[in-house]
Amino acid sequence: MEKTIAVLGAGLVGGPLARDLAAEDGFEVTVADVDGAALSRLRAHDPSIDTMTADLSDAGAARALAAASDLVVSAVPGHLGFATLRAVIEAGTDVVDIAFFPEDPFELDSLAKERGVTAVVDAGVAPGLSNLLVGRAHADLDETEEVLILVGGLPVKREWPYEYKAGFSPIDVIEEYTRPARYVQGGEVVTRPALSEPEPIDFEGVGTLEAFNTDGLRTLAATIDAPDMKEKTLRYPGHIEKMAVLRETGFFDAEPVDVDGAKVRPIDLTAALLFPMWKLGEGEADLTAMRITVAGRRDGQPVRRSFRLLDRYEPATGVHSMARTTGYTATAIARLLLEGRFAEPGVVPPEFIGRSAECVDFVLARLGERGVVVRED
Amino acid sequence: MEKTIAVLGAGLVGGPLARDLAAEDGFEVTVADVDGAALSRLRAHDPSIDTMTADLSDAGAARALAAASDLVVSAVPGHLGFATLRAVIEAGTDVVDIAFFPEDPFELDSLAKERGVTAVVDAGVAPGLSNLLVGRAHADLDETEEVLILVGGLPVKREWPYEYKAGFSPIDVIEEYTRPARYVQGGEVVTRPALSEPEPIDFEGVGTLEAFNTDGLRTLAATIDAPDMKEKTLRYPGHIEKMAVLRETGFFDAEPVDVDGAKVRPIDLTAALLFPMWKLGEGEADLTAMRITVAGRRDGQPVRRSFRLLDRYEPATGVHSMARTTGYTATAIARLLLEGRFAEPGVVPPEFIGRSAECVDFVLARLGERGVVVRED
Repeated sequence: MEKTIAVLGAGLVGGPLARDLAAEDGFEVTVADVDGAALSRLRAHDPSIDTMTADLSDAGAARALAAASDLVVSAVPGHLGFATLRAVIEAGTDVVDIAFFPEDPFELDSLAKERGVTAVVDAGVAPGLSNLLVGRAHADLDETEEVLILVGGLPVKREWPYEYKAGFSPIDVIEEYTRPARYVQGGEVVTRPALSEPEPIDFEGVGTLEAFNTDGLRTLAATIDAPDMKEKTLRYPGHIEKMAVLRETGFFDAEPVDVDGAKVRPIDLTAALLFPMWKLGEGEADLTAMRITVAGRRDGQPVRRSFRLLDRYEPATGVHSMARTTGYTATAIARLLLEGRFAEPGVVPPEFIGRSAECVDFVLARLGERGVVVRED
Repeated sequence: MEKTIAVLGAGLVGGPLARDLAAEDGFEVTVADVDGAALSRLRAHDPSIDTMTADLSDAGAARALAAASDLVVSAVPGHLGFATLRAVIEAGTDVVDIAFFPEDPFELDSLAKERGVTAVVDAGVAPGLSNLLVGRAHADLDETEEVLILVGGLPVKREWPYEYKAGFSPIDVIEEYTRPARYVQGGEVVTRPALSEPEPIDFEGVGTLEAFNTDGLRTLAATIDAPDMKEKTLRYPGHIEKMAVLRETGFFDAEPVDVDGAKVRPIDLTAALLFPMWKLGEGEADLTAMRITVAGRRDGQPVRRSFRLLDRYEPATGVHSMARTTGYTATAIARLLLEGRFAEPGVVPPEFIGRSAECVDFVLARLGERGVVVRED
């Protein structure tokens, strides 16, 4: 029997993700976005994809589409994410979410359980694949002592001054550079300044990168019982000092400044100036570097596991590494749900799926088929 | 007989300069400024100073004040400088100018000659004292082959990220970072990008600084016949890369950018953010570092002269080094004119005064009395 899948959002990740699902026999994919041009490009890639121009800031549109589908993949912008997820759950449809919204997803847990909906949130690469691997390692240990996640998406070509490109708005990146980082240390949640504790990291196949504190633990801080947990972001060396200079000067401030009688939010001007410099262009090669370490004890013995991912832009399909690693994790989890391999109702961060070795193997196998390979050192 | 001197502008340099002149018997000093508070502070320092609240953007005010004075010292903001100088010359009054306006001062040369006015322009430290020393060395040579001026005003306390403070608006500093530098090379005027060719310079008593291209030759490019002439600005190492990053990102652009429907000139926001960070506060120690090299031939033999100045903030008087070196050069030249030691009519850049060893000795002696000491290596 055919399965109907609604993909909400046809952006840099939503598009390739929809193509991946549509390529499978038995999946009927409909993609909704407000951007008609993005939908046209998608149909040009794969005419079997149905598209629908829809304003997804209207939760009613998401709800109606969800009600008519077996599964929803939500790839809407972060600020729409929470409301969209609620609407999909209300429609009673299982959902895989990569909107990475700032709200606490567990606020929707009882609603999801009530409707019998499986709502997998943060289902990208990091958060996402990272949570899955941490959840797996944690399940295999009697006691988890330490979790460290290092991850970054980078352009292959390093261009002065920032040596950085993003598939999303500079404002979302800058948010990582201003929001204090929350860690678990000695069993307590502690807060570190954004951009703090830079350290060089030699990443095999890439060279020396610089890791710094970011607020990326998200659900793990609440779901994994370990006294020390930390997430750091990777950039080419030097990037973060430039960001710190801009922040110190006030270019990231959201408070309006008086400029010749007009009120200007510095962050808005900064985002406008950085947008063209940071835009990851079509055909522009990027890479994803991630290293995860989980340490603890099993049968009284110390155990340390280390996972490594280095993925690159795929010239043949023109799909960026950011879209590959994020999107194919989401489509692998979508397949888990559609094939009935995972059916736990409620809000499910990927570390919950990680409790099942079979589910993790399934996801890693689907990623591996697409060339996204996680190695365990 | 008493000499009456009008000082136009009571800013960071105008104030100390007026105090220096008023301390001399036989000088009656009147200071005009639109800023009543600055005038009050000046009277508190020296009640013998007459003050007058006047809007000097009205050239008529400058003209009237000049007509009633034996000499004018113009320390108005650069953008008012040219019109103010014209008004003073029209009034027939000798003038020493440190407004450092962008226009070509020689456009006023025939007017000054016609009125029998001596108008010394660029009469600060650099341009100013630098021109005087280059003019002197040039006059002593049969042939001048090379002129190199390195100069910078810096805070003593180095504070991350910029390690820089200015006594004037960040917009005027940024102008140095965006305007291409004009040099004389192989006898031709060549243009180099602003902020280009950074090089480390060990400056005795300060440490390693960084020199970079700036457009500071000004009148020297036209008045000194030498095949190679260059001026570079000194900053603490690292400053200029940060400036280059801001410039590359567009933060120095004067073209309005659309920000949420409003038009914003990035440079205006940048200046607003940098203003509090770069403000040289009262009592904050600064220094002036300058090194000048003039090479050439005399009697067929190669000659290389090298002058060095390192001046510091004076705690006893609370006068910044920037004001000391700029202001006391101007007051020394003012005394030259008032004592009839230099009376050439026309627009006179300091290198013209440098032709006279006696005049140069007089200026250096006045500076030396105030602790501003030029050493020849």
